[in-house]
Amino acid sequence: MKRENNSKLKIIPLGGLEQIGMNITAFEYEDSIIVVDCGLSFPEDDMLGIDLVIPDITYLKNNLDKVKGFFITHGHEDHIGAIPYVLREINVPIYATKLTIGIIDNKLREHNMLTKVKRKVVKYGQHINLGCFRVEFIKTNHSIQDAAALAIYSPAGTVVHTGDFKVDYTPVFGDAIDLQRFGEIGKKGVLALMCDSTNAERPGFTNSERTVGKTFDNIFAEHSNTRIIIATFASNVDRVQQIINSAYKFGRKVVVEGRSMVNIISTATELGYLQIPDHTLIDIEQLKDYPDEQTVLITTGSQGESMAALSRMAANLHKKVTIKPGDTIIFSSNPIPGNEKAVSNVINELFMKGAEVIFQDAHVSGHACREEIKLIYSLVKPKYAIPVHGEYKHLRAHATIAEELGFEKENIFVLSSGNVLELDENDARITGQVPVGSVLVDGLGVGDVGNIVLRDRQHLAEDGIIIVVMTLESGSGQVLAGPDIVSRGFVYVRGAESLMDEAKKVLDDAMEYCMDKNITDWGKIKTEIKDELGEFVWKKTKRRPMIMPIIMEV
Amino acid sequence: MKRENNSKLKIIPLGGLEQIGMNITAFEYEDSIIVVDCGLSFPEDDMLGIDLVIPDITYLKNNLDKVKGFFITHGHEDHIGAIPYVLREINVPIYATKLTIGIIDNKLREHNMLTKVKRKVVKYGQHINLGCFRVEFIKTNHSIQDAAALAIYSPAGTVVHTGDFKVDYTPVFGDAIDLQRFGEIGKKGVLALMCDSTNAERPGFTNSERTVGKTFDNIFAEHSNTRIIIATFASNVDRVQQIINSAYKFGRKVVVEGRSMVNIISTATELGYLQIPDHTLIDIEQLKDYPDEQTVLITTGSQGESMAALSRMAANLHKKVTIKPGDTIIFSSNPIPGNEKAVSNVINELFMKGAEVIFQDAHVSGHACREEIKLIYSLVKPKYAIPVHGEYKHLRAHATIAEELGFEKENIFVLSSGNVLELDENDARITGQVPVGSVLVDGLGVGDVGNIVLRDRQHLAEDGIIIVVMTLESGSGQVLAGPDIVSRGFVYVRGAESLMDEAKKVLDDAMEYCMDKNITDWGKIKTEIKDELGEFVWKKTKRRPMIMPIIMEV
Repeated sequence: MKRENNSKLKIIPLGGLEQIGMNITAFEYEDSIIVVDCGLSFPEDDMLGIDLVIPDITYLKNNLDKVKGFFITHGHEDHIGAIPYVLREINVPIYATKLTIGIIDNKLREHNMLTKVKRKVVKYGQHINLGCFRVEFIKTNHSIQDAAALAIYSPAGTVVHTGDFKVDYTPVFGDAIDLQRFGEIGKKGVLALMCDSTNAERPGFTNSERTVGKTFDNIFAEHSNTRIIIATFASNVDRVQQIINSAYKFGRKVVVEGRSMVNIISTATELGYLQIPDHTLIDIEQLKDYPDEQTVLITTGSQGESMAALSRMAANLHKKVTIKPGDTIIFSSNPIPGNEKAVSNVINELFMKGAEVIFQDAHVSGHACREEIKLIYSLVKPKYAIPVHGEYKHLRAHATIAEELGFEKENIFVLSSGNVLELDENDARITGQVPVGSVLVDGLGVGDVGNIVLRDRQHLAEDGIIIVVMTLESGSGQVLAGPDIVSRGFVYVRGAESLMDEAKKVLDDAMEYCMDKNITDWGKIKTEIKDELGEFVWKKTKRRPMIMPIIMEV
Repeated sequence: MKRENNSKLKIIPLGGLEQIGMNITAFEYEDSIIVVDCGLSFPEDDMLGIDLVIPDITYLKNNLDKVKGFFITHGHEDHIGAIPYVLREINVPIYATKLTIGIIDNKLREHNMLTKVKRKVVKYGQHINLGCFRVEFIKTNHSIQDAAALAIYSPAGTVVHTGDFKVDYTPVFGDAIDLQRFGEIGKKGVLALMCDSTNAERPGFTNSERTVGKTFDNIFAEHSNTRIIIATFASNVDRVQQIINSAYKFGRKVVVEGRSMVNIISTATELGYLQIPDHTLIDIEQLKDYPDEQTVLITTGSQGESMAALSRMAANLHKKVTIKPGDTIIFSSNPIPGNEKAVSNVINELFMKGAEVIFQDAHVSGHACREEIKLIYSLVKPKYAIPVHGEYKHLRAHATIAEELGFEKENIFVLSSGNVLELDENDARITGQVPVGSVLVDGLGVGDVGNIVLRDRQHLAEDGIIIVVMTLESGSGQVLAGPDIVSRGFVYVRGAESLMDEAKKVLDDAMEYCMDKNITDWGKIKTEIKDELGEFVWKKTKRRPMIMPIIMEV
């Protein structure tokens, strides 16, 4: 039944494997392509000045007529962030659950694209038919509500994609993950399982979100005489709900601070995902009307982001909140890899202001640990294992779990971006490679900052720039003005007059040499200047600023 | 007896509290100052292009005739790294144990200062009299051999400074920490204990270095068919010894790779701190003469440093070693805060090359955990507790331990750099503040890169630079050439011709405006150019490159 012809299903990750975060995967069968997720990455340290990174979707643009729609598993940036950029070029509908669509709507609104993109709210259990595909949304748990796994039915077989997930038997809001449905689909036969690997290195089970609520209650009980400030991820609405619950229980008013936190709370409240008792929420301006021990602030900045509310409070740069000795500050979060030091710096600053800082045990992960991953495999029992989500080391750890579960090595696929995995019941193989990559977004520019610009920024950042300008006489090539030297980011001029005076002499000598030798070609003059000045500066300072000769002619 | 007059002992941390690593503390009594340690910091993320950071020693230079000598607790960079810079300005003897002096000698040699600085090798138990002070070296354990605590005897009382330490009852080389002597000195009465706080957040006891040897044996036994590559800290000679022991036991030859690793191993071997069986060490060139399963490489790069040997191997940039599928690579280290992501990136790259990477459980800390800190307090029983070494949050955690041990809050001093703590048996108080700070070293420049240069580098790194040049006629102020535009690190020119053409028009208009309005003042012309071009670029790109107008006159 499933193989009227010899077509196979193609699974093509278009990002998200080398560049963590950029989750976007194409599923192709004959004339149909559907895409799962459309995420962005945040820039690596060497991507100076870059705001965000989106996937190169050349493959989709080259197959525009095949692309039927996007299916989004949940509302985190690494799954939705590239939508405003990608959907500008590929105008097909987006399918997702209610809260996820609500968050996508906010994003499209910011980009003035709300009327241009079709969004369809899908319920768990609902099936969407698109081209050769049928896609079913399955309830899961994660650190954001309304997360879904997808069962992707194709003529070549069924693929189950977990999205980011955990197993929470006692979720704060809504139902536990629909393990029965995973079992039922598995029983009917599943070709491949694409399962979250983020916590594949961690043994055991991830704790229920509800355990954090108990921690909050304990902390609130122990700190009944101080103000409480809690930093967490804006999108973790259940976390916010539990803070509000504890606040209400202990008779505190709640202030929400930080733009992304305010946005998501208002969306979640509108859509019914957050229950706030009347008179609990107050405006930040009203904070002064209540004694400290009757207030809680929920704020952004749990990752030490320098512009976020908590970091500004810690640095005394926040306009409305000043950290006071005695404040109790809770980091309800773990640092995302790469943010450890920034978080530590904020914690140290808060301690220095005399606050008590609690940065352990007030958080649980949103990702499945090893035993949960095994559980999903045992329910779905796929023929092929395709670890997804996480760094390469996490994918490898996940592959090891699959081996322990009895998978043959040749049935486990740790894919690289752009790999074309062709599969059906008989066989699965990487048969090709499509173009993939990272597109850098800087301000309004999408893709206009490439390696040359980044290399220049790196060079400028390291040692600054020395600009040499001069005006030559047209025809004779005689120096009419200059060479003059200006520098930025090199050394502070007041301490470097003599260095600059000497450099000027080096330049005068270089120009004299050019005149003597009748060198009039501007390229050669510039090379001479770069070489001579470069060597002089290196000898004197052991630095290599960018040297930029500019010649004018009159 | 101790208080013939009313003088008090002053303890003045000159660095190392806000800026982690820069450990240097002055002890002053009347006309005598001694200094403990002389470390450097590595630059923070926002110190672009900076190589290292050393303490501002204005206070010592202002009291040059009082300074009697430097006492160095052990040979780590954060305790010795600033010696070549500081001792250039303050020429007094350095006192330290044998290996520490050996490492300092290497450093001085690199700076051509070996003949200019007096070094004195001190044995444990030895007392040095300098001015009003007597200093005794006490055996401790740490992640480098020959670490010492100091008992500093002054007329105002005794201070015990632990340096960085742990309690290792079964060290790999030499003796366990001299707990008896801590007890003996404590029994005679100690004014203040300055104790390592680095692990004050961690419960229990730090494991013995010896446990890592057992881990190596197990890994070697389990990986008898592959090459083994182990990255660790160059200065951890005991770790290197244990790798060599396991290699010898399992019949493998050892290659040492990475400049700092080679240096320290040769110093340690010369001084008798490392025992290498004959024919065990081979040159990297000989590697090809042995089958993989008979070799071990010990290498630098355990912190993901991009230029270190292991990172170059992972990136296929190493000239002599290529990572092969099947290689077993061990990180015998933990990432230092801030290096987590770099380490992860190298691990991922190694996995992608098909290597097996072991990055857990092959390391122990060199710092005392909570129970060890309590042990030292119980032996020394000081009147005042002065937590040292570690981030501010660690100092606070240490202060909490002291409180738990029964110290009154007013007898615990979490100092800031520059604080002058005056103390004797009756009283301890912060009585003043001396100038302190960070001096940035960039290439040969010490202190010539300040905030203005760093701000410029940051600006250049973010959005690049646009240079506008023109030549005006002397007298008339007419434009003879230009305005021309050159940019670097802004956008790649091939994609931006039309933007640059439009920008040129904006400049022409701005100059026309200046001519029309008879604006001839160069400052005003430059401001006009900056404003107009800046606004245009922001509108078009939402970026703010540095705009630098340069005017020439002929």
